[in-house]
Parts: sequence; structure tokens; C-alpha cells
Amino acid sequence: MEGSASHGLGQWVEKVVERTKKIGRDDPRRIIHAFKVGLALTLVSLFYYFKPLYDGFGVNAMWAVLTVVVVFEFSVGATLGKGFNRMMATLLAGGLGAGAHRLATLTGRSGEPVLIAIFVFIIAAIVTFARFYPAMKARYDYGLLIFILTFSLVSVSGYRDSQVLKMAKERLMTIMVGSCTTILVCVCICPVWIGQDLHNLIADNMEKLGNFLEGFGGEYFQESENDESNNDKSFLQDYRSILTCKNSEETMANLAKWEPCHGRFRFRHPWKQYLKIGSLSRECAYKIEALNCYLNSNTTVQTSNIEMKRRVQESCTKIGKGTGKALKELGSTTRKMRRSRSADLYIISSKTAGEELKVQLRMTKLENADILEMVTVAAVASLLFDVVECTQKVAEAVYDLADLAGFKNTDAAVSPESNLVQVQPGSQHVITISE
Amino acid sequence: MEGSASHGLGQWVEKVVERTKKIGRDDPRRIIHAFKVGLALTLVSLFYYFKPLYDGFGVNAMWAVLTVVVVFEFSVGATLGKGFNRMMATLLAGGLGAGAHRLATLTGRSGEPVLIAIFVFIIAAIVTFARFYPAMKARYDYGLLIFILTFSLVSVSGYRDSQVLKMAKERLMTIMVGSCTTILVCVCICPVWIGQDLHNLIADNMEKLGNFLEGFGGEYFQESENDESNNDKSFLQDYRSILTCKNSEETMANLAKWEPCHGRFRFRHPWKQYLKIGSLSRECAYKIEALNCYLNSNTTVQTSNIEMKRRVQESCTKIGKGTGKALKELGSTTRKMRRSRSADLYIISSKTAGEELKVQLRMTKLENADILEMVTVAAVASLLFDVVECTQKVAEAVYDLADLAGFKNTDAAVSPESNLVQVQPGSQHVITISE
Repeated sequence: MEGSASHGLGQWVEKVVERTKKIGRDDPRRIIHAFKVGLALTLVSLFYYFKPLYDGFGVNAMWAVLTVVVVFEFSVGATLGKGFNRMMATLLAGGLGAGAHRLATLTGRSGEPVLIAIFVFIIAAIVTFARFYPAMKARYDYGLLIFILTFSLVSVSGYRDSQVLKMAKERLMTIMVGSCTTILVCVCICPVWIGQDLHNLIADNMEKLGNFLEGFGGEYFQESENDESNNDKSFLQDYRSILTCKNSEETMANLAKWEPCHGRFRFRHPWKQYLKIGSLSRECAYKIEALNCYLNSNTTVQTSNIEMKRRVQESCTKIGKGTGKALKELGSTTRKMRRSRSADLYIISSKTAGEELKVQLRMTKLENADILEMVTVAAVASLLFDVVECTQKVAEAVYDLADLAGFKNTDAAVSPESNLVQVQPGSQHVITISE
Repeated sequence: MEGSASHGLGQWVEKVVERTKKIGRDDPRRIIHAFKVGLALTLVSLFYYFKPLYDGFGVNAMWAVLTVVVVFEFSVGATLGKGFNRMMATLLAGGLGAGAHRLATLTGRSGEPVLIAIFVFIIAAIVTFARFYPAMKARYDYGLLIFILTFSLVSVSGYRDSQVLKMAKERLMTIMVGSCTTILVCVCICPVWIGQDLHNLIADNMEKLGNFLEGFGGEYFQESENDESNNDKSFLQDYRSILTCKNSEETMANLAKWEPCHGRFRFRHPWKQYLKIGSLSRECAYKIEALNCYLNSNTTVQTSNIEMKRRVQESCTKIGKGTGKALKELGSTTRKMRRSRSADLYIISSKTAGEELKVQLRMTKLENADILEMVTVAAVASLLFDVVECTQKVAEAVYDLADLAGFKNTDAAVSPESNLVQVQPGSQHVITISE
């Protein structure tokens, strides 16, 4: 029995170690974050160890410790948002609480608790309700919570502690010390910018869509049946994360708004435009989800409609490759913060392939074809037409972002003012894009 | 100027009042929640007003006030989760913090702060890292935060306050008083059960999908062109909320696990199965999103392929109506917590219509048809086949839920043991379903 118990424990420890390694490897910034929290806490606890510091605040120094623990978040944006909310709310509610206490004392010792209780009830109810406003919830939820907290603490403790103003001031000071320590440690040591993360996420998403589309033709028409086993098919599933990341994109954009200018991001970077690109990418991912179904049901129909498939293979693969390359290009220029319309070339080539596909479909002799067997092929073609349209919309949103965020124009061949794309000599196309 | 400023203010006030009304009307439980928070806060502040109560805790009574503000959440599940996390973490970390302080005092007055600082640093770093484990984050994130907080407060304040154990005990007691007051008010006055909300959300989602599918045929084939203006078309967009509600379903399921037995929900209600139904409904919503595109591009193709459309109209509409009714039936039986396989009849009729559609497509003469024009019709047909399959999967997941959750068998005509569906006399079908 003991042996099996220790064996079970051994397995459990092994599992935990394995997971810990994975969590650290997935994002090494997490390990640094853990040490940063430890450091910030150790720093504020100095207020207890050094007598001159402790004499200033006394037991109120614990608010500094408490502040560090609750305000320190993984990203700079979240930490700044919480710190700012906490400081502002403490300032406002502390003042209001002291005022409420002063007003209540005018009614005498017996009337005071009744009046304070009424104040607390009303303020708590109103501010709690205010937390349901979507605009308030998005950016000031924590501040509203701290407002109720501080107002109640200051006005209620006033009944037992006559130095209400002093208490409110000390609470504010210690919370400021705690918040500032947290913010300093968070920003100065390996900062995690949530704006940068959102930027990368949006670029990643476009690249994931691109990878699927680029590989779709080969998979659907099974160009390379022989080396199926040693291929990594993960690119066919990667896009799925885009389907459900709307909420996290919105949260990230809200937090990014708190971040100051960093790297190539300004304070008022157009975060809203990232949400627009994200939502258009999601539209595209829905089409891809539909395409993916035909990929999975591939084996059941591959023998019967193989003739029909061969006919459209070239154009379909071209559309997939074109939109895929366009989306990857858009992802890559966004990631590098470059202004470039090079993706337009790929979109145009997909559109051309789309026209070819339409002609091929029109010219197809149908006398001998089984209509049912071509339904899936037709559905795939129809989805690919939609994907081209989606890609065009994503591209336009990315160009808007480049304008709004002032990405640098490092692409010498493209002049954004005239919307004229000139390709290097040797290439066949000289294309004028009019919008 | 003054006039326009007061006019602008008037408009702003009007807007706020309008929004307030909307937020209250959308969910009147929010108004009750606001008053509940006010009540709970007023109740714990009694600790300050009554001398016998205050003498027990002193200034530590503020922890009770603080606890009410931060623990009181909208739903019972969230409140219980936070309250439980807070109490357990305070108990464990308080004990550990007192132990750490005792250990540190052994090294003498000068070594103590160094050792305490090292303890705080290590514990804060380890526990902060632990918050990244997905399983911990889902249910114990708040507990881990409070663990760091209490451990730091108790071990660090020990340096200035020799009665560490007394302090840890008082902190625990006041936090328990605050948590219990909050939980009592939250559960006893108009409780908001998040489990019930999740249950309703899942049922709603199935009904939304059903509404779309039921109406799809009529919209796509424009049966009722004349009364287009006075129709409410919102059912065509309602399903969109399902596409992105994965995260909130998961959060709700995690919180619902904290809730005790209530109404017809047991303590260990199979919440995981709700997530399964939710995710299958989402699969179905992705298909519907693809269908919806053809609905929107309807006007551009309606004249050209109208002949092709007329041919498949009846079967397509039947499939839509059948799956729509099946999903609405599944939603409605889930909502009422009934065990019934009545949706199977509709699924079978959709399958039959699907077979008819296949036959019709096979029999279609294509000599004169423009293949391009039938691509969209073929795509719609193909998506409808997929929707039938999806509906079948949703139905199976709902039947599993009925088994797992022990829904009552109120449908006399259906005997679940034999999987035999017998319909009332007068109906044409007596169908045996074998799986």
C-alpha cells in the first residue's frame, strides 16, 4: 500500500513538474513576473523594517502591502489601470467619506450612526449599479469597487476614530506608495506591454488564416498523398483559436489604452482598428471553418467526384495560395509596422483565379456528371469566392491601420498617396488600383 | 454659451437616464443586487456602532467591511467562490505567516527582517506563478491572491506587533463575519443562481438556432415578399451571440460548480455537459453563419438562378423547418428539464427531406442550367445537410444531459429505455429509432 501511495505521489509530482515546465516555456515572462511580484512586495515591506519609515505610517503601512498584491498584474496596461483606478477612487471616496462623516456629526452622537448608515447604503447601491454600465465596467470597474470600499471605511471608522481626515490621508498616501512601487517595478523590469501582445495576436491571426488557405488546396486535392505521415498538419487547426478570441481581444484593447507610449506605439495608438481587423479576421475564420468541414469529409467523397475536383483543382489551389499569401503578407507587414500594399498583388491574382474558376465552371460539360457529387465542390468554390472578398476587407482594414498608426513606408515600390502599385521590372503586371 | 452648456448637460442627463432605464429593464435583478450590497455593508458596519461588538474586534472590524465589498458578486456562485477562497486562504496563510514569523524570531532582532523578506519573496513568487496554472486560475485564482496578501501582512506586521497569532486570528474572524454576512444576504434575498442562468443560456441558444433555421426557408426563397416591411427580422441575427459566447459559458460553468443544490439543480449538476451542448450549438452556429451569407447576397442572384431555386425550395424549406423545430424542441425540453425524445421526429423528417433533396438534385436536368448559377444553391443544400448532422449531435448531447442530470420523464408517449417513439393515434408515423 505504501509503495503504491508513494508511487502515485511520484507520478503526481512528475505531472506538476511537467506542467510547470510547459507553463514557463510557453511564456517565460511568467517566471519573471513571479519574481517581480516578490521583489515589489519585499520593497514595500521595508516600511515595516525601517523605524523612520514605519513612524510615518504606522499600521497603515499594511495598505501599501495590500496594494502591491492586488494591483500587480501581468501586463503594464492592467497594472496601470488598476493603480490609477485605486488611487483616484481612494482620493475621491476618502474626501467624500470625510465630508459625510463631518455632516453626520452635526446631528449629534445618537443621530450619527443612522445618517452614516443611510449614506453608506445609498452610495453603495448607486455605485454598485454604476458597475453595470458597459463603458464603466470596461475601464473603471475596479475604481468603482474601491470607491465603495474607501467611502465605507472612512465614513464608518470615523465613528470610533475622530481623526477621520488624517486616516483618509494616510490611507491615500500608503496606497500611492504601494501603487507607485508596483508600477515602477512593473514598468522598469522586463515590462509586458499588452498593446504589443494585442498587436502580435492580430498579426498572428492573419498568418494563421494565411497558413490554412495556403495549404488548403494541397490538402483538399491531396497533391502529396505519399508523404502524409511525416507532415505537420497543425496549420489546419491553428485558425480555430481565432473563432473564440473576441472577448480577449476586447479586454486587451481596453487595457492597452492605459499604456503610455512604448517602442513604436504611441499613447493614443488606434487600438479600436485592431478590433476591427480582429473581427474581419474572425469573419474569414468562419468561412474557413466551413471549408475545413469539406476537408474532413474528404475521404468519403474523394473517389466519386474526383473528376469534377481535378477540373477545378488548379484555380481553387490558386485562390487558396493567393489569399493565403495575401493574409500572411498582411500579418507580416502589420507585425513589422510597415506600410505596404504588396498584399494587393496576391489579392488581384486570387481574383483572377476566381474569374478563371467561374469560366471553368461555366464551360464544364454536365451531361455525364452526377450533380450531387459536385455539390461539395461547388460549395468549396463558393466559399473560396467569399474568402477572397473577406481577404480584401481585411487588407483594407490593415491599410487603414497603417494610416491611423502612421506605420513607416519602407516599401519603396509602393506609393500610398497615388494608390499606384508598381512592380519591379521583370514582373508581368503593372497594376493600377482604384478604390 | 450658458444656454448651450445647460442644453448639453440636459442632453447628457437624458442619455444617462435612458441608459440607466435600459440596464435596469434588461435585467431587473441588477437593481435588487445594488440594494443587496448596500444592505450587507450597512449590516457589517453595525460592528462599529455597537460598543459590545466593536470591543471584540476593534479596528480589525474594517476587514469585515472590506470583505463585504470585494466578495459580494452578482451571482451566488461567484460570491460563494470568492467567500470560500478568501476564508480558506486567510486561514492557511495566516497560520503559515505566524509560523514564518516565529521561525524568523529565532534568529534574533537583526536577522528577523532578512529572513521574513526572503520568505515573503519566495512565497509571493511561487504563488504568483501558481496563478498561471489553468486549473488553479479557473477556480482558486482569488484564493491564491489572498494567500499572498495574508501571508505578507501577518509575517511582516509581526515585526512591529508581537501578538501575531492574535492578529491572524482576528483577521480570520472578521473576514469570516464579512464573508458569511455577504453570503447570507446574497443567498437569502432574491438569489441570482448562475447555474440557472447557464441552463437558460444553453436553452436560449438552441432556440435561437431553431428560430433562424425555421425562418431560413421563407427568407431564402422569399415566400412572403409582400409583408417584408412589417416583419421582425431579428431572429435572423439573434444566433450571432452564440458565435462568441464560449468564454462566458466556461466562466459560468466554473462559477456554477460553487453553488449548492437549488431548485431542480443538484450540487453536482453535470455542468460540463452544458459546455458540450454549448460547443455543439456553436458548431451549428458556424454553419448558420455560412448560410446567412447566402441570405444576404440573396438579392444579387435571385433573378438568375430562380429556376434552380424553385426546384429545391420545398425540400430545403422542409429541412430548415425540421431542424429548426427539433432545435426549438430541444431548447424547450432542456429549459423545462424534461426528458423527451420528441425532437427525434423532427430530425427524422429533416433527414427524409434531405434524401428527397438529394434525389431531386440527382434528377435535375442540367443541359440548360448555368452551373455557376447553381453553385450557391448547391452550397446552401450542402450546408443544410451539415446542419441536419449537427442537430443530431446536439440532440444526442441533450439526451445525455437528461440522463446525467436525471430530468423527469414527463413525456408519456416516449419510453427512453426501449428508445421507441410512439406517436398519438391519428399521426401517420410509428417510428422505431435504433441507435
